[in-house]
Amino acid sequence: MSSLDLATLRAAHERIRPHIKRTPVLTNEALDDARGARLGFKCENLQAAGAFKSRGACNAVFSLTDAEAARGVVTHSSGNHAAALARAARLRGIPAHIVMPAGSPQSKVRNVASFGGRITFCEPGLNAREAACAKLAAETGATLVHPFDDLRVIAGQGTATIELLEDVPDLDFVLCPVGGGGLLCGTALAAKLLKPGIRVIGVEPALADDVAQSFRAGQRIAIPTPATIADGLRTNCTGEVNLPIIRQYVDDIVTVSEAGIVAAMRELWEKLHLVIEPSAAVPYAALLERKFVFAGQNVGLILTGGNVDLESLPWLKR
Amino acid sequence: MSSLDLATLRAAHERIRPHIKRTPVLTNEALDDARGARLGFKCENLQAAGAFKSRGACNAVFSLTDAEAARGVVTHSSGNHAAALARAARLRGIPAHIVMPAGSPQSKVRNVASFGGRITFCEPGLNAREAACAKLAAETGATLVHPFDDLRVIAGQGTATIELLEDVPDLDFVLCPVGGGGLLCGTALAAKLLKPGIRVIGVEPALADDVAQSFRAGQRIAIPTPATIADGLRTNCTGEVNLPIIRQYVDDIVTVSEAGIVAAMRELWEKLHLVIEPSAAVPYAALLERKFVFAGQNVGLILTGGNVDLESLPWLKR
Repeated sequence: MSSLDLATLRAAHERIRPHIKRTPVLTNEALDDARGARLGFKCENLQAAGAFKSRGACNAVFSLTDAEAARGVVTHSSGNHAAALARAARLRGIPAHIVMPAGSPQSKVRNVASFGGRITFCEPGLNAREAACAKLAAETGATLVHPFDDLRVIAGQGTATIELLEDVPDLDFVLCPVGGGGLLCGTALAAKLLKPGIRVIGVEPALADDVAQSFRAGQRIAIPTPATIADGLRTNCTGEVNLPIIRQYVDDIVTVSEAGIVAAMRELWEKLHLVIEPSAAVPYAALLERKFVFAGQNVGLILTGGNVDLESLPWLKR
Repeated sequence: MSSLDLATLRAAHERIRPHIKRTPVLTNEALDDARGARLGFKCENLQAAGAFKSRGACNAVFSLTDAEAARGVVTHSSGNHAAALARAARLRGIPAHIVMPAGSPQSKVRNVASFGGRITFCEPGLNAREAACAKLAAETGATLVHPFDDLRVIAGQGTATIELLEDVPDLDFVLCPVGGGGLLCGTALAAKLLKPGIRVIGVEPALADDVAQSFRAGQRIAIPTPATIADGLRTNCTGEVNLPIIRQYVDDIVTVSEAGIVAAMRELWEKLHLVIEPSAAVPYAALLERKFVFAGQNVGLILTGGNVDLESLPWLKR
């Protein structure tokens, strides 16, 4: 199977329902007026473990056979996927081995540890991470749960859009941030399979535009580790299963500036009264920067996560 | 009528339903574990205009006869009540005259103006505010909508607890912050009339404990304008209609420290991923400071508002 059908997405939703939250979709008069559109914000910052990643992680973990599950799961991630996988594994009562680069922020290390993740530190860089992961998998028999290059993970991430369309059936657009492309694949599949006329737009930091480049080129293009403030989107290259799905189901991928991301983040904190991380502000930045024509339309935006360091807010930096 | 019955509260809920949001009740595994109780947070920071005040203001404005409404409404408030009243008046298409002390923060002045409120500045101090209000009422025929000493306002504020109990019927406790006592009265009436066995606890900053003092003394006690960081709770004295209701329906009023309020605010931002103002953190501070016995109980907390200056967060102050 190289893609997913609607039945598989719905089965994923049933599978993870006991383990995730039904997050609200918020609307806001002031933001609608300011942008000239009707906006619905799917609040995955309010999801368990603070991000949509709990959906994909739970679907992967609860898809395992008992024999597979007993050997645990392993992944490399310094961020929300690691915490979500550790949480999902704990819910199933199995070990989660998490490879993190040495020097990861203490807040992220603590977060993974708080869910019982077994942390192995490695050198920075994708090669070292993948090597450490492969070594752990070989030693323990644990199943690799890749953060985005995995159909079970993609199906889980798509469930956010199933719920979004249940709550706001008349959407014209769905927007989501693009890191490795796992959420974008799940979002696009759910949106197009449920409502073929809807338009799906991925939004990527211009500093981390590997998926936008790959989308246009028709082949996976790797870039050096990007320096965007959107720390959840600093991937080098989309996955093998991801690009064909993105090419088939996504209408466009647009890019936004770093200043736009900070402005969007601040505006959403102030008006929506939500703590969201920089990555989650990226789709709204596309509205601020008018990256496509959305006037008068119903636009759904996935607010992907809320895990942020409250000591260093970007608009307070000197 | 010196108090309110359940039918009046339910009528208020029906009256304001088209003009307010049904806010979610959030739960959080980590906070439940940390506090040893099951917590439900009623997210009035996600309410229209960013605070529960929209409930009382809408009930007051939409209770007016057409003849009364045509002459507008007037209030004195520098905070959320002013913005909520301006918004409610605009929804009904009538003028709202808002008396604000000279030197009010620009963010609050902008907020009131953004909803079309007609602002009159006065000298600081309750006397000057009331005099300016009375003068405007005499000149325009506008109806005074007091921020808390008003049964229509109290009925509106109580609707948050109607919804909270619909979503979490098995609550043992409801906690809310105490400023002038409008929310406390509405909360206590709704809670006790719907579920007589529930316990209602008001939480007040120790620096602004006029209602706690009045509750124990059985008479209204005024204090100098308090300096608490919880800017929404800096009232001098509860209202005439408020104290009898509080004495009849509230189980206890406890007080919390300034450090507790800041710690509670920070913990809720970090774990719930919500922007809440200091006043909204006051009930959770009572859990942090173990001001009553709640182990193993179902505790509802009203997160009252999210209007905060993002430039100056208390944990970043030197």
